[in-house]
Amino acid sequence: MTTSLYIDPASGRTYPLDVPRWCSDDRKPLLVTPQPGMSRDDIDRTCRSQWRYRASLPLDVARPISMGEGCTPLVQKEWGAHRPYFKLEWFHPTSSFKDRGTTVMLSVLRQQDIDAVLEDSSGNGGASVSAYGAAGGMRVKILAPAYASKPKIAQMRAYGAEVQLVEGPRQACEDEAVRQSEHIFYSSHNWQPFFLEGTKAIGYEIWEDLNFRAPDNIVMPAGAGSNVLGCFMAFSELLRAGQIAKMPRLFVCQPLNCSPIDASFQAGVATPVAREVRKTVAEGTAIAHPLRLRELVSAVQATGGATVALQEQAIVDALKKAARTGLLPELTSATAIAGLDHLIQAGTVRESEETVVILTATGIKNADAIAEMFA
Amino acid sequence: MTTSLYIDPASGRTYPLDVPRWCSDDRKPLLVTPQPGMSRDDIDRTCRSQWRYRASLPLDVARPISMGEGCTPLVQKEWGAHRPYFKLEWFHPTSSFKDRGTTVMLSVLRQQDIDAVLEDSSGNGGASVSAYGAAGGMRVKILAPAYASKPKIAQMRAYGAEVQLVEGPRQACEDEAVRQSEHIFYSSHNWQPFFLEGTKAIGYEIWEDLNFRAPDNIVMPAGAGSNVLGCFMAFSELLRAGQIAKMPRLFVCQPLNCSPIDASFQAGVATPVAREVRKTVAEGTAIAHPLRLRELVSAVQATGGATVALQEQAIVDALKKAARTGLLPELTSATAIAGLDHLIQAGTVRESEETVVILTATGIKNADAIAEMFA
Repeated sequence: MTTSLYIDPASGRTYPLDVPRWCSDDRKPLLVTPQPGMSRDDIDRTCRSQWRYRASLPLDVARPISMGEGCTPLVQKEWGAHRPYFKLEWFHPTSSFKDRGTTVMLSVLRQQDIDAVLEDSSGNGGASVSAYGAAGGMRVKILAPAYASKPKIAQMRAYGAEVQLVEGPRQACEDEAVRQSEHIFYSSHNWQPFFLEGTKAIGYEIWEDLNFRAPDNIVMPAGAGSNVLGCFMAFSELLRAGQIAKMPRLFVCQPLNCSPIDASFQAGVATPVAREVRKTVAEGTAIAHPLRLRELVSAVQATGGATVALQEQAIVDALKKAARTGLLPELTSATAIAGLDHLIQAGTVRESEETVVILTATGIKNADAIAEMFA
Repeated sequence: MTTSLYIDPASGRTYPLDVPRWCSDDRKPLLVTPQPGMSRDDIDRTCRSQWRYRASLPLDVARPISMGEGCTPLVQKEWGAHRPYFKLEWFHPTSSFKDRGTTVMLSVLRQQDIDAVLEDSSGNGGASVSAYGAAGGMRVKILAPAYASKPKIAQMRAYGAEVQLVEGPRQACEDEAVRQSEHIFYSSHNWQPFFLEGTKAIGYEIWEDLNFRAPDNIVMPAGAGSNVLGCFMAFSELLRAGQIAKMPRLFVCQPLNCSPIDASFQAGVATPVAREVRKTVAEGTAIAHPLRLRELVSAVQATGGATVALQEQAIVDALKKAARTGLLPELTSATAIAGLDHLIQAGTVRESEETVVILTATGIKNADAIAEMFA
């Protein structure tokens, strides 16, 4: 195993991996230095979880906190003249893709003697960290916005997490988390780099699902973009390792009402571009200032992909259309389905190509919104 | 493939499998004649779904309606001095084990030219039939009790099902379904025998999960008991095929408030024994008159298993205990966890034994009840 490090991609400054940290000394987001990737022979085929790809990780994890995350189905559907695959990312312990990042992040931190963690979240991320913290015997504190839904807060508390409600907008939770991070390790799913080492597994899994090929296109919703970067990292590693011949194009779908990645990508720059932010039904993507915006835009550019910004009605219609095929994702995930239709209409995604659409969580998590839609 | 038939286990009367039916001519429940089972070499290892065990089915299904059902994780937990396995049956398209039965039932019926189906359900069964009907291009009508929760009804409608609300108790829905069955095929998850051919897959899967051994004990919740009969059928077939040396003991857990299987088993008879029925938090098991009571009691007796009836508080406490290990099942499933603890305390389930607990659906389906518990 090569010597891997934490790295600030902006400054190039590095830090050792064996000292837990969530940011650089000057409070900038970190990554792990690029990994060499793995071959199909390195897959642990006896393992029914994403830990079968553990050879791709930058360090050994002796005792993963695992509850069967990963190995989700890839389901092909007739879709007009197209035959896209849908990756059903609600086949997870807490029913969202977040478990992929959490299982790796908390397993590494626990191994490094962290026994209590802090997270800020209004939904899926908080549930995931609460569940894996419980499974790993770690104390978990979640800072949630006071407006967060009662069932979501209750779910975190059920797992034994201490939940502190924070008044104000979503950002106030992160600000408070940073303040409290002096007293308890801030295992933010947005900040801590091992979360991305976990979401990376989805790329390896799509590769194995497709019999060790990369698809032509991957279409996915993005808020903070951990799936985008996870896919980019995985396929970059596979390319580096000579396992695939070319990168899949990455297509990032956001609601127009909150589309900072699209705004920057369309402007052709990797820095924030002002665009009005409004409320969206795709709650999971409602992140006005993605921490890793620069890396997200670069990843989309590097693969020849694109971003798509969707109207609210298109997202709702996409959910209805998917449900009529037997798939009921979260509204957040429906953004990717609306994006797929947009890309097909634009001729960007073609019938002859192999296309994977990532559906990040189940519609059951949106039970009330869906009840209103179908009352 | 041997010639399989529908059979009325009470009278022995048989019917051909190639004519779709949901009951005998005198409206008694049917099964399929016992199957020879399959060996590990018959598993289609290229298939990531329970269709990998299709060799165990009584007829060939050319084009299954499949969305990745099955291949759920078996997660081992420390549990005092014990190390039970939990089979997480919410890793399914509609987030409950019902998809196992539905995928086989509707695939067979569609192949037999049924294009419209009727189901009666207040919850998971209706969602499952609605989703698979949509996926298979079949028209679905659900009869649901008027008291069913709005989100559950909305979920069925989202999949495109027609939902008719029926006033009165749960039984009124089934009575109405039987009336309407003259006009539309009644694909009841309780009545139609191929549903059990589908739930059978969980037994085969546990066998493969445990490296082709049967566990000593399987502990599960039961209402109509399709998991109990599915396990019994699978392991009986494996025994018949010489793949295992002995049957696992089957332990059936019910809330005391609605425990007809326990009442009959404790009385030592396979006929209904009167016991008061009250409301229970374990909604999924609230079936006062299980259609296949005789077969359920016989299966438990034949394996040397037992039934357990649990107090409401024990069920709630069991959910809390499981959540603190990172697993948040439906309250219905928590009945099995309470049952496990009861069996351990009684010395019936021992440390040296291999024990599997089936958790049939996710707690997210009980979001409101769990919100009240952890407010």
